Amino acid sequence: MAIEDMVVRGAPAIGCTAAFGLALDITQVDQDSTWRSYKGRFFDCCARLEATRPTAVNLFYAINQIRQAVESISDNELVRDVSEVVERCAQDLFNSDLETCVAIGAQGCKLHSSDKKLRVLTHCNAGALATAGYGTALGVIRALHSAGKLEKVWVDETRPYLQGARLTSYELLQDNIPHTLIVDSAAASLMAQGLIDWVVVGADRIAANGDTANKIGTYSAAINAYYHNIKFFVAAPWSTIDLTISSGADIPIEMRPQSEITEYAGQSIAATEVTALNPSFDVTPSKLISGIITEDSVIQEPFDKSLASARAHNNRL
Amino acid sequence: MAIEDMVVRGAPAIGCTAAFGLALDITQVDQDSTWRSYKGRFFDCCARLEATRPTAVNLFYAINQIRQAVESISDNELVRDVSEVVERCAQDLFNSDLETCVAIGAQGCKLHSSDKKLRVLTHCNAGALATAGYGTALGVIRALHSAGKLEKVWVDETRPYLQGARLTSYELLQDNIPHTLIVDSAAASLMAQGLIDWVVVGADRIAANGDTANKIGTYSAAINAYYHNIKFFVAAPWSTIDLTISSGADIPIEMRPQSEITEYAGQSIAATEVTALNPSFDVTPSKLISGIITEDSVIQEPFDKSLASARAHNNRL
Repeated sequence: MAIEDMVVRGAPAIGCTAAFGLALDITQVDQDSTWRSYKGRFFDCCARLEATRPTAVNLFYAINQIRQAVESISDNELVRDVSEVVERCAQDLFNSDLETCVAIGAQGCKLHSSDKKLRVLTHCNAGALATAGYGTALGVIRALHSAGKLEKVWVDETRPYLQGARLTSYELLQDNIPHTLIVDSAAASLMAQGLIDWVVVGADRIAANGDTANKIGTYSAAINAYYHNIKFFVAAPWSTIDLTISSGADIPIEMRPQSEITEYAGQSIAATEVTALNPSFDVTPSKLISGIITEDSVIQEPFDKSLASARAHNNRL
Repeated sequence: MAIEDMVVRGAPAIGCTAAFGLALDITQVDQDSTWRSYKGRFFDCCARLEATRPTAVNLFYAINQIRQAVESISDNELVRDVSEVVERCAQDLFNSDLETCVAIGAQGCKLHSSDKKLRVLTHCNAGALATAGYGTALGVIRALHSAGKLEKVWVDETRPYLQGARLTSYELLQDNIPHTLIVDSAAASLMAQGLIDWVVVGADRIAANGDTANKIGTYSAAINAYYHNIKFFVAAPWSTIDLTISSGADIPIEMRPQSEITEYAGQSIAATEVTALNPSFDVTPSKLISGIITEDSVIQEPFDKSLASARAHNNRL
């Protein structure tokens, strides 16, 4: 399964892929059979997809959108018609994600009005390869670059899965955005030397009080930014905000295989008896966050009140 | 060269290896020739060794000890006699390093008097594989373990060179000390969950004001410990303290090849055009350090005064 094995990763991309996965599954059965005969398998697929990754909320959001879309379909309708509905829904999710990323980029870019070009640190990959395209954190970086407000990007390699080294630096290369790769633990030293102005990261799930689950290491980057008085922004669509969860303490954190730490490309890094702990995400408390950049606005403290009122104002879920 | 290529690493081990390297070189020439005829090559060797690694001060300390030992030798003495002097000096440095580590362990162990067993985080490798044996930071951990005061060790894998994954976890396995390997950036999250009581690290050079240069990532670990109100100790012999340097700003930081980040065991991790910055060390300001555990005593703030008076009291260099 592409989502489980991390061929596809990044919260928004997981959502889109799950939606297209459902659309694809329908094409595998007889198009002239009825929705009644296929329904069981379809909802099994939904459940199986939901079980793949516990932390990213966009997965559940996307599958729920599709569940809603098929709700009113009567049992006697043909699979071919259901297929059309599901495919349209998946395509809508994809288009909307792309538009959302561009809007997030614009919101982030507005935050910097001075002439000084920014040196921005990012962790993990919240780029085109984590979304339908353009990216959330990388959306902000792309928008800053287009506006001539970016000097360079410092890219955390992002252990253990190296999304920074493998994906973010690749995306930045493609777009000719100046950048330098570092090990995650080197960021603090660059901050102390005054070489980082902003930190921008994505999010896998944001609680009602603004606490943010994101790739392991995000919390450490936030503490380092706080200690050096550097702005720390989270860039994420509303579909990542989960107002049913009051704080980060309630966000489930996925534990992944220890082999992601003890092996690289099949080669052992540590002695075989060594055990490792591999939490894939951590939670950054909102007090360390300067702002959450959404497609509508930038949410700032007090995050609980700001999120609630922004939701009402923008008519969000 | 074993020191340059990091076959031998760890400040005290580098010192010992350099000393034995000089002793070994003498055995390669005619033992009946005169010191006059060999002298030039000998001091060239010293200079070449000094040029290998700029940050670890123990290298310069060891070579200076040997320079002093050969100072009074007259030009007409035979190489065979010089050889004896140098070999004895190297052996003394080695024995003294081993005793020093055991003394550091005892000093560190005395710091914890309660019954609660400690969960200790360490970064990089300051163990038997970084010293003549027993270790500095791992000396403290070994002493705590022997005294029944240790619950477990959290081992930072220590990117990019993975000394934690490759060396520290191996040493702890050998000694049956309970431990778990993590990626460097996961430590903050464990601290937030109350799973870490102490951080203990080694040092490559300590300035007169207590600022400490150590493996890249040490500074980030210190900030994280400070933020979570967790004790952060540096364990190091007096030979690592360089009172000729007033603060960390004057400690030279070695930049190592970017391939240590962009490749693993010859395989590319990032696209070939990606550039990386690889500072091998960072400087932790003394205000983040709870104590410097030496073989004589534990130095605490104000570090400048405490180091100066401890030096006078213990008759150290």
